[in-house]
Amino acid sequence: MKKKIILIGASGTVGKEVVKRFQEVGHEVISVSRKSGDYQADISDKQSLETLFKSVGSFDAVAITAGEVAAAPFESLTDENYSFSFGSKLMGQINAVRTALPYINAGGSFTLISGVLTDEPILGGTIGTVINGGIEGFVKAASNELPKGVRINCISPTVLAESEAFHPFFPGFIPVEAWKVAKAYERAILGVITGRIIKVY
Amino acid sequence: MKKKIILIGASGTVGKEVVKRFQEVGHEVISVSRKSGDYQADISDKQSLETLFKSVGSFDAVAITAGEVAAAPFESLTDENYSFSFGSKLMGQINAVRTALPYINAGGSFTLISGVLTDEPILGGTIGTVINGGIEGFVKAASNELPKGVRINCISPTVLAESEAFHPFFPGFIPVEAWKVAKAYERAILGVITGRIIKVY
Repeated sequence: MKKKIILIGASGTVGKEVVKRFQEVGHEVISVSRKSGDYQADISDKQSLETLFKSVGSFDAVAITAGEVAAAPFESLTDENYSFSFGSKLMGQINAVRTALPYINAGGSFTLISGVLTDEPILGGTIGTVINGGIEGFVKAASNELPKGVRINCISPTVLAESEAFHPFFPGFIPVEAWKVAKAYERAILGVITGRIIKVY
Repeated sequence: MKKKIILIGASGTVGKEVVKRFQEVGHEVISVSRKSGDYQADISDKQSLETLFKSVGSFDAVAITAGEVAAAPFESLTDENYSFSFGSKLMGQINAVRTALPYINAGGSFTLISGVLTDEPILGGTIGTVINGGIEGFVKAASNELPKGVRINCISPTVLAESEAFHPFFPGFIPVEAWKVAKAYERAILGVITGRIIKVY
């Protein structure tokens, strides 16, 4: 059955591959970005999420490939670095789930994003590890309490092959291509699993 | 060598046992609570932490047995439940490390607290699992970047034998006595480990 999937972060490196993959397999993707796509929304702005889900009205999945995190050596991280990151990648994704829940179809699914920093800290990446740990905790806990048979999973990619500017911060890490990350979204959205962290590394 | 240990949350069930244990083994404990103890501070108030560490001036360890988290069924959790909990147990502990760091002695240590919900979600405990995941991530990442040979670890206890009011929320969990949790603090503070999560369950 054809699914209607809202993809937040559709203009990003992973987002573009997710759009492409779901079009290939014959599902409808509603693309969302801050400044492009079928709808505009910003995960750090809860009101914009409310407006988004209410406007779409009915859908089978929400997938997120968005969320920003500040990075800097531990002693130079500021209050602002923490609050910005908490509001974006952590609380932004949590709020997407909370605000979409009244609208999502029974048997639908959420797919969030964490990253390799959960398991493998890097210099300057403390906030990233905090937030990924929080997001993965959210997915593991919320999966037991979502109503209407709704599932929730998390994709944890390592550094992307396409994001060459980040490679020096991940010494010895073997990058993955974005299409492989998109396949993990496909597994999460079209499969039966819930409460799972799919590591793409 | 006798160590000077600042214990935040000294009036709590675990805190009292930590005080007792460190006095038995001949170390100095500076007890801190919101309304009692040698000093008063509230981890959700960063300014009160700055004042605390500046006032004590020099110390070998900061141990935390404090931090509050809201609990409720997933769909009834409010924005306020999330922001209160993030400000207390998550950002409160992170801020304790950040504000104590300029004052702590070389070779000192931080010992934070998470809990069994990281691994074992319970009904109503989503925020707890989010926050514990974040705190454990913080400890794992920050351990690689702390200066002056300062160590950082995290104690993750299951439900306490003494906290009988919580037992119905942890069906089938075998509670642990607070003195066993205090022993984990002793291992973390007097040992050599860093970046470790000590599970007491």
